[in-house]
Amino acid sequence: MSEIAKYTGVFPIAPTPFNPDGSIDWASADRLFAYYNEIGSDGATVLGIMGEAPKLEPAESLEILKRAVKALKGKPIIVGVSAPGFAAMRSLAREAMEAGAASVMIAPPSTLRTDDQIVTYYAQAVEAIGTDVPFVIQDYPLITSVVMSPGVIKRIVMDNPSCVMLKAEDWPGLEKLSTLRKWQAEGSLRPIAIMTANGGLFLDFEMDRGADGSNTGYAFPEMLIDVVRFAKAGNRDGAHDLFDAHLPLLRYEQQLGIGLAVRKYVLKRRGILASDAQRKPGGALSALAKAEVDYLLTRLARTDRRAAL
Amino acid sequence: MSEIAKYTGVFPIAPTPFNPDGSIDWASADRLFAYYNEIGSDGATVLGIMGEAPKLEPAESLEILKRAVKALKGKPIIVGVSAPGFAAMRSLAREAMEAGAASVMIAPPSTLRTDDQIVTYYAQAVEAIGTDVPFVIQDYPLITSVVMSPGVIKRIVMDNPSCVMLKAEDWPGLEKLSTLRKWQAEGSLRPIAIMTANGGLFLDFEMDRGADGSNTGYAFPEMLIDVVRFAKAGNRDGAHDLFDAHLPLLRYEQQLGIGLAVRKYVLKRRGILASDAQRKPGGALSALAKAEVDYLLTRLARTDRRAAL
Amino acid sequence: MSEIAKYTGVFPIAPTPFNPDGSIDWASADRLFAYYNEIGSDGATVLGIMGEAPKLEPAESLEILKRAVKALKGKPIIVGVSAPGFAAMRSLAREAMEAGAASVMIAPPSTLRTDDQIVTYYAQAVEAIGTDVPFVIQDYPLITSVVMSPGVIKRIVMDNPSCVMLKAEDWPGLEKLSTLRKWQAEGSLRPIAIMTANGGLFLDFEMDRGADGSNTGYAFPEMLIDVVRFAKAGNRDGAHDLFDAHLPLLRYEQQLGIGLAVRKYVLKRRGILASDAQRKPGGALSALAKAEVDYLLTRLARTDRRAAL
Amino acid sequence: MSEIAKYTGVFPIAPTPFNPDGSIDWASADRLFAYYNEIGSDGATVLGIMGEAPKLEPAESLEILKRAVKALKGKPIIVGVSAPGFAAMRSLAREAMEAGAASVMIAPPSTLRTDDQIVTYYAQAVEAIGTDVPFVIQDYPLITSVVMSPGVIKRIVMDNPSCVMLKAEDWPGLEKLSTLRKWQAEGSLRPIAIMTANGGLFLDFEMDRGADGSNTGYAFPEMLIDVVRFAKAGNRDGAHDLFDAHLPLLRYEQQLGIGLAVRKYVLKRRGILASDAQRKPGGALSALAKAEVDYLLTRLARTDRRAAL
Repeated sequence: MSEIAKYTGVFPIAPTPFNPDGSIDWASADRLFAYYNEIGSDGATVLGIMGEAPKLEPAESLEILKRAVKALKGKPIIVGVSAPGFAAMRSLAREAMEAGAASVMIAPPSTLRTDDQIVTYYAQAVEAIGTDVPFVIQDYPLITSVVMSPGVIKRIVMDNPSCVMLKAEDWPGLEKLSTLRKWQAEGSLRPIAIMTANGGLFLDFEMDRGADGSNTGYAFPEMLIDVVRFAKAGNRDGAHDLFDAHLPLLRYEQQLGIGLAVRKYVLKRRGILASDAQRKPGGALSALAKAEVDYLLTRLARTDRRAAL
Repeated sequence: MSEIAKYTGVFPIAPTPFNPDGSIDWASADRLFAYYNEIGSDGATVLGIMGEAPKLEPAESLEILKRAVKALKGKPIIVGVSAPGFAAMRSLAREAMEAGAASVMIAPPSTLRTDDQIVTYYAQAVEAIGTDVPFVIQDYPLITSVVMSPGVIKRIVMDNPSCVMLKAEDWPGLEKLSTLRKWQAEGSLRPIAIMTANGGLFLDFEMDRGADGSNTGYAFPEMLIDVVRFAKAGNRDGAHDLFDAHLPLLRYEQQLGIGLAVRKYVLKRRGILASDAQRKPGGALSALAKAEVDYLLTRLARTDRRAAL
Repeated sequence: MSEIAKYTGVFPIAPTPFNPDGSIDWASADRLFAYYNEIGSDGATVLGIMGEAPKLEPAESLEILKRAVKALKGKPIIVGVSAPGFAAMRSLAREAMEAGAASVMIAPPSTLRTDDQIVTYYAQAVEAIGTDVPFVIQDYPLITSVVMSPGVIKRIVMDNPSCVMLKAEDWPGLEKLSTLRKWQAEGSLRPIAIMTANGGLFLDFEMDRGADGSNTGYAFPEMLIDVVRFAKAGNRDGAHDLFDAHLPLLRYEQQLGIGLAVRKYVLKRRGILASDAQRKPGGALSALAKAEVDYLLTRLARTDRRAAL
Repeated sequence: MSEIAKYTGVFPIAPTPFNPDGSIDWASADRLFAYYNEIGSDGATVLGIMGEAPKLEPAESLEILKRAVKALKGKPIIVGVSAPGFAAMRSLAREAMEAGAASVMIAPPSTLRTDDQIVTYYAQAVEAIGTDVPFVIQDYPLITSVVMSPGVIKRIVMDNPSCVMLKAEDWPGLEKLSTLRKWQAEGSLRPIAIMTANGGLFLDFEMDRGADGSNTGYAFPEMLIDVVRFAKAGNRDGAHDLFDAHLPLLRYEQQLGIGLAVRKYVLKRRGILASDAQRKPGGALSALAKAEVDYLLTRLARTDRRAAL
């Protein structure tokens, strides 16, 4: 399998399970990764923004990765290595690759503004981690404040042969996706994988627009897997029917800041996590918000029995 | 009716109809306002961000307002008067009130950062427009970059008796809404109306959280009206059922920047606008995007016949 | 004289004089413009950020411009027309040109991020004002938050033949200035004038780097005129000696937000303005700050007698 | 000596010396710290923004600190521990204190907006590092984009007894400094030290406004020491005379991004650093910029013989 062809299907974004005392809940972590594998995930991403990576000690991070590698039995694992300094990014990237990661993911720091600044940053990052380490561009302006035009993404991809994938989570992002795919069809942009994210809010149409799959963290990754499968099989209505049934909950989970609490709460209700705790400082759902999520689950269960908890 | 009690139900945000040559399509404007009135809107907002107000000549703006006042037969009209300078804001506000507006809406300029800066800005704005002009706070960080904590909103409301309403479109915003309503219940925040917006993405739960209604611009305001009516009548499931049927399209229309093109395209397909043109510089939907909207309309029509075009 | 050759020497940025009651002090305005002319200014800029333009009524703005045109006896006047909407920008620009302005100045709105967004904005602005109106690019990231790389400036200049000048006030900005001049020397960037600003904080070296002059608003424009004259005559040490003597005060005046109050206070002490009032909302110097400025003036007067007040 | 009384006088911000190959130049580091001690520095700050801390390996960071502690013979050392995650911040802070640091310095992350968000962040940071670790607030909006009103600083200081100092580098900042000192005089703000920075651009007046000293990194810390000494001795004119002589160079060094290259270049010319190299990715001065610095040094040497190199 080529380095690029690996990135297709569904790669869930893994949250990091904690015990209520703030220690890592390793049993839940093992259960979560095993579950990802069983439902047919094609890989996973660990230590991203939603994995509470900045709250982890280096040894904890490495252990999370190792358990994911083991449980997912060789499927590709993407590891977030964004860091304010290139020394830390390099260490994280080298250690991750040694521990079995398939590639590393890099988001631009929020200070970047001009096209040239962004392109230069990725050149420096690649020099820091080494050109032998496959990397993923994370394009997520809602979080980073950095806006990358399609042309900037093209320059990064063409300048750096070790770029294997774009994690596309700009919003709005459908036309951007079409532009990049058109350039690839015309041959002006070399092949890379494009998986989409931003909570999956537009996965239904992103598949039509040519995405290779989904790299996001909704609490029912089975839905993402089914939608991607339906879409690839040409079952457009089936993909939309399932997606639409989940959209009220998915939209609720896609809220910045609160989303992780929703995700962990649902995963706990599903019996996959023992606790919905976040390591401090972390958010928690109000009683009202939990009741709203419960209500959404009840409504969803009318269509998708996997939500009947 | 008290100044505050006016702001309840649904106040659509009116787009400004243009002919393909960029001139205002007055016939469509009249049709649009008459339509708002007929379906049971409780008021309307004109000259907001989605009304392409910055592209209008002063005389055009005033004429739009006058036609809205006439067609909506005395229902309250909110007029956007955000401007970089207080001279322009004052002129707009005074002219709007003379032309029959019920109140004016003010968004904070993007340069504001600290709590005190925001509070001071509103004090200065009120001094500029006059304390006799009722005003609406627009809280829309996705557009303005200005983040107002609940405490800042409280200070603005308590400092300025002419504040009649909060247009709540922070995202996430449910807990903020609950906090403000709790303060009002406790008596530490005086009564003002709170209508929600941000494309209506959370209207289903906002009604549960105590919103007075919806002040946004979805292309099927009938849905907003029904959802608000169901919610106020205690028909929670009915409200969610209808809302969920519209959510795939509503989510598509809520995209920043593209949303207005979607809205105008649907209003044109519905026969309310003669053209979906925007005055330059404006966006347009790609053929692919139009086909996606058509597909969403077809799917929606299975549940809501008003979408069968 | 070619359209571009006009922009050389010193163009003071004019503050707008107010009476303590907030009305415009026309006598001071006439005195100020006459004074600019007498000391040998080569032109002037009115209605810029430091001219409190957003607080002026349209009729006031036009009258300011007309008086500047008259007092400066045909020397070129640049008029700030930055506005949130192209309708207002167009009106301002057309009226300004009819009233005798030489060109209009446009700063990018703070929402722009990518290179393409900035280039597109200027294309739209030029379409709005008309290709027959000479315009000045204002590059002032400290105020606008928009960062323009040299390549973006080049694209704007090459795409729009009506661009006559860059007002260069990026910080740091010396290397940017050198890059643009190098491109002009090589022929890849067509000739335009480059005048520098940002309070004059680097005027000493900007002249060495190839600036055509100064377009800023220090309270002693005579100093700017002398420094530019010395620099053009090859008297480098003389330019630096005079500049350095003024630097402590100039640095004090270059503070964002407070700078205008300092400038007006000094101009009042010099007898040019009758009052240092700003129209509301405006800043005022504390007693301590005034004493600091007085102290700086006393110290400056030891070297430059024009500061002996 | 109380924890707070330590922070007075001049604490240079130490750059990290590198060899041209990117390795740390330990001999230069030792020479630099010894030099700080000899000229009468009262302490120092290491591993700040200007110390290229994000490019250092953890072991390197610790070694830098240890050498500073040793060379400065027990004078207080402040260590920058700003980090995107509290795990890393905690590790750095605990290790720094064990290695002999006097306190740690924390800047707010650029995502913070509201007053409450900033106050909460510091509460969380203090919980992470431990309430036994003295800390310094870094208020530097030009770099962090976070604007702290005086009231926010007050809340942080009053909420967290382990806060010992404010590093004040807001710009403009004189009135803010006066407000904080007034509150301390009135008793509504408990005593903490306030040292100023932002390249020293306003040190002359900051001492008059009540600063305890300077905590910045100009290439002639002797000047800072003399100015602070003169000011404390009531020799106001002497302080300004010396400051003004250095201001042209100091202003040149205060440029964001380029400043560190200027500082290292001058320290190399002074024989304190063997090389002006920065670890990659780092900036370098153009030949023209070096010539400009040389020219400024020559001019300065006419007044201050320490600049005769």
